[in-house]
Amino acid sequence: MSGLKVAVVGGGSSYTPELVEGFIKRQAELPLAELRLIDVETGREKVEIIAALTKRQLAKAGLDVKVSVHFDRKPALEGVDYVVSQFRVGQLDARALDERIPLKYGVLGQETTGAGGFFKALRTIPVILGICRDLEEVAPNAYLINFTNPSGILAETIVRHTKTKAMGLCNNPINMHLGAARILGADPGKVNMKFLGLNHLLWAKVFMEGQDVTPRILEAMSVPSGQAGTPANVAALPYDRDFLMTLGYYPCAYQRYFYMTPEMLQVEIEAAATKGTRAEVVKKTEAELFELYKDPNLDIKPPQLAKRGGAHYSDAAVSLISAIHNDKKEIHAVNVRNGCAMPDLPADAAVEISAVISREGASPLTMGPLPPQIRGILQQVKAYEELTVAAGVTGDRNLAIQALVANPLIPSIRIATELFDEMAAAHRQYLPQFFRA
Amino acid sequence: MSGLKVAVVGGGSSYTPELVEGFIKRQAELPLAELRLIDVETGREKVEIIAALTKRQLAKAGLDVKVSVHFDRKPALEGVDYVVSQFRVGQLDARALDERIPLKYGVLGQETTGAGGFFKALRTIPVILGICRDLEEVAPNAYLINFTNPSGILAETIVRHTKTKAMGLCNNPINMHLGAARILGADPGKVNMKFLGLNHLLWAKVFMEGQDVTPRILEAMSVPSGQAGTPANVAALPYDRDFLMTLGYYPCAYQRYFYMTPEMLQVEIEAAATKGTRAEVVKKTEAELFELYKDPNLDIKPPQLAKRGGAHYSDAAVSLISAIHNDKKEIHAVNVRNGCAMPDLPADAAVEISAVISREGASPLTMGPLPPQIRGILQQVKAYEELTVAAGVTGDRNLAIQALVANPLIPSIRIATELFDEMAAAHRQYLPQFFRA
Amino acid sequence: MSGLKVAVVGGGSSYTPELVEGFIKRQAELPLAELRLIDVETGREKVEIIAALTKRQLAKAGLDVKVSVHFDRKPALEGVDYVVSQFRVGQLDARALDERIPLKYGVLGQETTGAGGFFKALRTIPVILGICRDLEEVAPNAYLINFTNPSGILAETIVRHTKTKAMGLCNNPINMHLGAARILGADPGKVNMKFLGLNHLLWAKVFMEGQDVTPRILEAMSVPSGQAGTPANVAALPYDRDFLMTLGYYPCAYQRYFYMTPEMLQVEIEAAATKGTRAEVVKKTEAELFELYKDPNLDIKPPQLAKRGGAHYSDAAVSLISAIHNDKKEIHAVNVRNGCAMPDLPADAAVEISAVISREGASPLTMGPLPPQIRGILQQVKAYEELTVAAGVTGDRNLAIQALVANPLIPSIRIATELFDEMAAAHRQYLPQFFRA
Amino acid sequence: MSGLKVAVVGGGSSYTPELVEGFIKRQAELPLAELRLIDVETGREKVEIIAALTKRQLAKAGLDVKVSVHFDRKPALEGVDYVVSQFRVGQLDARALDERIPLKYGVLGQETTGAGGFFKALRTIPVILGICRDLEEVAPNAYLINFTNPSGILAETIVRHTKTKAMGLCNNPINMHLGAARILGADPGKVNMKFLGLNHLLWAKVFMEGQDVTPRILEAMSVPSGQAGTPANVAALPYDRDFLMTLGYYPCAYQRYFYMTPEMLQVEIEAAATKGTRAEVVKKTEAELFELYKDPNLDIKPPQLAKRGGAHYSDAAVSLISAIHNDKKEIHAVNVRNGCAMPDLPADAAVEISAVISREGASPLTMGPLPPQIRGILQQVKAYEELTVAAGVTGDRNLAIQALVANPLIPSIRIATELFDEMAAAHRQYLPQFFRA
Repeated sequence: MSGLKVAVVGGGSSYTPELVEGFIKRQAELPLAELRLIDVETGREKVEIIAALTKRQLAKAGLDVKVSVHFDRKPALEGVDYVVSQFRVGQLDARALDERIPLKYGVLGQETTGAGGFFKALRTIPVILGICRDLEEVAPNAYLINFTNPSGILAETIVRHTKTKAMGLCNNPINMHLGAARILGADPGKVNMKFLGLNHLLWAKVFMEGQDVTPRILEAMSVPSGQAGTPANVAALPYDRDFLMTLGYYPCAYQRYFYMTPEMLQVEIEAAATKGTRAEVVKKTEAELFELYKDPNLDIKPPQLAKRGGAHYSDAAVSLISAIHNDKKEIHAVNVRNGCAMPDLPADAAVEISAVISREGASPLTMGPLPPQIRGILQQVKAYEELTVAAGVTGDRNLAIQALVANPLIPSIRIATELFDEMAAAHRQYLPQFFRA
Repeated sequence: MSGLKVAVVGGGSSYTPELVEGFIKRQAELPLAELRLIDVETGREKVEIIAALTKRQLAKAGLDVKVSVHFDRKPALEGVDYVVSQFRVGQLDARALDERIPLKYGVLGQETTGAGGFFKALRTIPVILGICRDLEEVAPNAYLINFTNPSGILAETIVRHTKTKAMGLCNNPINMHLGAARILGADPGKVNMKFLGLNHLLWAKVFMEGQDVTPRILEAMSVPSGQAGTPANVAALPYDRDFLMTLGYYPCAYQRYFYMTPEMLQVEIEAAATKGTRAEVVKKTEAELFELYKDPNLDIKPPQLAKRGGAHYSDAAVSLISAIHNDKKEIHAVNVRNGCAMPDLPADAAVEISAVISREGASPLTMGPLPPQIRGILQQVKAYEELTVAAGVTGDRNLAIQALVANPLIPSIRIATELFDEMAAAHRQYLPQFFRA
Repeated sequence: MSGLKVAVVGGGSSYTPELVEGFIKRQAELPLAELRLIDVETGREKVEIIAALTKRQLAKAGLDVKVSVHFDRKPALEGVDYVVSQFRVGQLDARALDERIPLKYGVLGQETTGAGGFFKALRTIPVILGICRDLEEVAPNAYLINFTNPSGILAETIVRHTKTKAMGLCNNPINMHLGAARILGADPGKVNMKFLGLNHLLWAKVFMEGQDVTPRILEAMSVPSGQAGTPANVAALPYDRDFLMTLGYYPCAYQRYFYMTPEMLQVEIEAAATKGTRAEVVKKTEAELFELYKDPNLDIKPPQLAKRGGAHYSDAAVSLISAIHNDKKEIHAVNVRNGCAMPDLPADAAVEISAVISREGASPLTMGPLPPQIRGILQQVKAYEELTVAAGVTGDRNLAIQALVANPLIPSIRIATELFDEMAAAHRQYLPQFFRA
Repeated sequence: MSGLKVAVVGGGSSYTPELVEGFIKRQAELPLAELRLIDVETGREKVEIIAALTKRQLAKAGLDVKVSVHFDRKPALEGVDYVVSQFRVGQLDARALDERIPLKYGVLGQETTGAGGFFKALRTIPVILGICRDLEEVAPNAYLINFTNPSGILAETIVRHTKTKAMGLCNNPINMHLGAARILGADPGKVNMKFLGLNHLLWAKVFMEGQDVTPRILEAMSVPSGQAGTPANVAALPYDRDFLMTLGYYPCAYQRYFYMTPEMLQVEIEAAATKGTRAEVVKKTEAELFELYKDPNLDIKPPQLAKRGGAHYSDAAVSLISAIHNDKKEIHAVNVRNGCAMPDLPADAAVEISAVISREGASPLTMGPLPPQIRGILQQVKAYEELTVAAGVTGDRNLAIQALVANPLIPSIRIATELFDEMAAAHRQYLPQFFRA
């Protein structure tokens, strides 16, 4: 077999060095031949810095890989085997608006779960559909590994509106797995995770030596030091012990937005007033990272990158590509079509779930019906996601407001409407489907 | 066939005269022989006033019916054909607490949908289970027609935990039907309603001459004068037109608590500060009604009764009894086991739905899968109801808090916990399952 | 409202006089204005005899209805309110082949359930699709009441491949209802039937005064005199008592083909060798009927018509039209889309089921999951029906053979293949989809 | 971890040497400490021969394993880690009756699929329930690996009526996998199988390098030399090419009993008349094997054992035990509770399906809805299996006859009844549930 051709949409992302490191680490099992970094013209400077660093990383590793930079997407996708997508429509400036505007209305501006994530979805849906249309034409057998956020809503978009072979990815599962292992004092390889739910509304059951040890994780999470699997971008508020033990499932970091809404809102408000919103903080981190990346002596992923919330993301992506490519039949948590794995959710919907990964794709493990405390919120949020995709694909303002009203974090039709109108205007240039000439 | 024996649990309710009027109106089709008014000792004065008025009403109508008053429930249920239940555990004083305490936490105290309804459920579940256990022993073939609130949660309790033949009832469907007919300018008999959902989270599709005319109703509801089917106890805030037209289903009055939460909360807060909560207002109305009822010259249902939110309730109950008894195969909206009528909700759950009523019971009409804007909230609230029943039956504080957290009107674990503890203490005497010696 | 326009496809059928009688009986509730008899050129003689008799019937009843004869279908359907379809592609000669050829292979040639019914379906599917296409163009609001056999497979065709508002009809439900009432010694109006299943694989539960009295029907059917609801064309072999009592559901006459296959085959073989197959017998009856029909003094439905297997058919059709037209909300057993009424069968499949009939159509009653003894055979036969429709629509010989193999009455691939090839050749002129130029 | 304790119920089976060989081959990963051979008193001679051979096999391999023989089951199960069950109630003499009696009625006597398998199930159900009851008491954490036939019906019994952690096993999956690899000319490790269905009504999709290569297998199976995965006991009649290509799923050997019923019956009739039924043939093979086994110089599994239909069975069992024990997360095809893996079959039913095997048990892969040609027969046979389990557990003759009638190979109620009565009488001593004093 000849070498692999991999494209990265959003190649200028500050995460790319981790992705490259992932390929270097797995060089024995993934014969990378070409890496095509695709980005938009406005990101030219960044992607060229990244391309140069990538070449230095690969050279240091002694790998003969062709690295190229592209601003015209479709030809750059021709004949690729895998596409990793990690782009951000409107960059961090758009995210800053996502995070700031909702606060005026007393609602969370989180970039995936709240109103912020909703607008990120609306901006991104047309682009991901464009990528899929391109792939259907020029690389129909390619796998798309998406970790652009909101990863679950984008998976829903792809599953319902394209024929692309795609798997959505998130670093929550790996963070939760490592967090659980730490709490259990065990090698992660000895800890089995059964993931189920939606992206950023993910749950797990944890097993060790054949026993369900989830209660041990939940017990730990009720003290501040035991916050398993919480990434840098989410405030690690501890849980009420009784609540968590009765819940019975290990929640990912983001459930806090639903379960501790006023407290999390307060954290956002305070941050915005002092150190800035997450986007504003990350912007600084990014600027620093790119300064580092420019250094012609740098030929490895710099350790500073781990400070970003997306740690482990890229490594998870390369690990998944290897599982597909080498037909490993390993279990990964991915965002794919539900089928009947969780019968409480629609068969056609995308879910985040433990699945066996082989050359022919992802086979979700059967999860069965869920208890009401898990089921109700999952169903409500899935309905929100479906409406969001319907709005994002059609550009129908009324559907967008239905979606926001269906989001548990939006308290009323009035707030949904006012918020939509202000945010849509702010993001107008990235919402062509809503502002057709 | 010999005459019917009917028991009324909560016989001392101010609604009983309407119930009696219902039987009088249908005397040709319902051969009432006995009416047993059952109540608690603390309600002796009221039930005796009601019994006297009942006898005058029946006498005026020339009907020979045996009217009796009972404080020992089980023997009073022996051999009855139908039981109407309309009791209120803790009377209006308990309701006043339900309505006031939540306001301190910034959450709605509505007596069915909000935290208030939750506590009403916890108080009532042990009693309704007791009635069912009695019926299983002394009148296993009797039908229980329940319109004690929260009617949906009690139906869920009965369906999951007893073998009683029961149908839950509400006046929402009849109010919505009359409201739609008024908007359409049509005879209600020419307007077909297809009801689906849960009690107080009910939806309808409206048909006339074979056409779906639901949009005409929705259009009307966006102006203040067009509030179809809103009872006296719910603030008739108008809807945003685009929202309602896109929603596509005709909501009952109570959906406003979910869709206009801050506005409805404001109404409650203002009322509490001025005229008093609904319970406090009703208490006065009730006192006035009972003054009227005492009048030995009163021998009909006084017109003042219509001011209560429960108008049409008792008439709906007698109409339903007649449909069963006379095997009418009419369509009524009742709270019964879902089966597969709405596959988005659990088969074992109680739903409020259009069903064919015959001697052998209720056969729900098949509704099929629902669109996401309707589905998500129904599923979330059904999960809440299931948890509420689990908590109410077991007396498990942790389950009660899970239930509250699952209620879309409760914003966080912390508020759920504090609210639970304060309200449970306030209602302690009516919550034996939570405060076992 | 102006008078109704009704078209009859297969207007020259010997059943038409019963249909006309049905309209005459219901003249007070169905204001018939026009009756359009549509047939093929080769049936000109018969349809003209029928038209003349129809006019005499209507004249005698003093009704002013325009009766017309049409050989060009599409214009004749323009603007109609109801279409009754009761045609037979290839007439009784084709049926005779359906019945005789299978016997050579040792399999039943029954005209609905067996290989015979399979070929009747293949011949009829293109015609019913043509009718629906015509209606979509020239009378999109018309209801199609189909009782052409195999009624269930045609309903499946319509439901899956057209937008026509249609209800399939059969005389089994009415025969079963009358049969049950006779066994119970009760007025049919006092006997409630709950029908579920597929056309000619129909089951019922029977209720009287709120009690399930199905066992009384089953008990009766184990003696020769107690054969409830068996029409003239099905041998009324009695059932084993224990079998039927354990089965627990009241089967229609046609289940015998599955439960007593060798015995029913023997009956067919003997009949074919002596009095002729059913088609051959009916041909004689029909010839006699048409002799009667020609009599210019005949102005009513002659009593001899009742000898045909289809008794009650046309009356059921007019009764159904009246239920729709007058928005009666009566319960009729019809062949319509399942939705989730029987969750053991696909939602998109057609089923025969008790449904509430109103102006807006049929709402099936929720039936829920079925016990295995009923479920298995229903699911197997539904799979056969789906494959038959797929074959009939596409003209794919391989799908046709899959369908036959899925039929429980066909023992092997080899027999399915040989039988298909012989029968397809024999019916070649009526199977354009399989024999394209 | 201390060594494993493994019990073999039916330890005297001629297959045991293969099982022992399996443990020897996997000695590095499975630290076997004890092997308890459990059998009935009437099998004492055989189990002692096997115990002696087992000790020689283990000695030759240099393994220190305690081998013991037990006739009192419950104490012998105490504290075991794994139980392998491979017993045969009534030995080969009972099987000979299973195979011969049905032929008199013109129906197949196959030992798993036909009437023979039905009686094997009735005899075995009480025993497997006994084993599970024992395990619940004395080894509640043990895994039961059952490959006693009919493996699917026994899995259904265990899943519905016990709490035992069990996986049913069959050699069909491994035979099909090897057969497919042979046809593809590929290393089995490069061929991915997706198994779904029921035991002995199993289907597969086959993948290689990410492509669905099932059609290549089906193509091959239409010529006599291409019979993939057919064991010695099933006549390898080739399939009609078009039929199989249209079917689209790779059938296991046993589907021939349904698709080629008359031909397979003819094979059985001829065999019975010449070389004897399969049981009679196997009896001779077994006698010869036991002669070999007695040889004190024999210390390996003799190659002659491969002639039995059950080749690969025991190896599959040990491989499965290793997957559990070593938490391999490998995919094996096992008989376990369906859950929602195949939504066309009941959630509570046992199915044979590809599942991920880990220390905590089997997680079936989600399969989703099936096409009608596969679905109908699976649903019909599952209904038969459910009725069989109900009959076998209760000893209700009427349910037994319902089960037989639901079996696609039994043509009528009459034959089911007569066959049941004759066979029940013949097996009376092994059917205590049907012949209570």
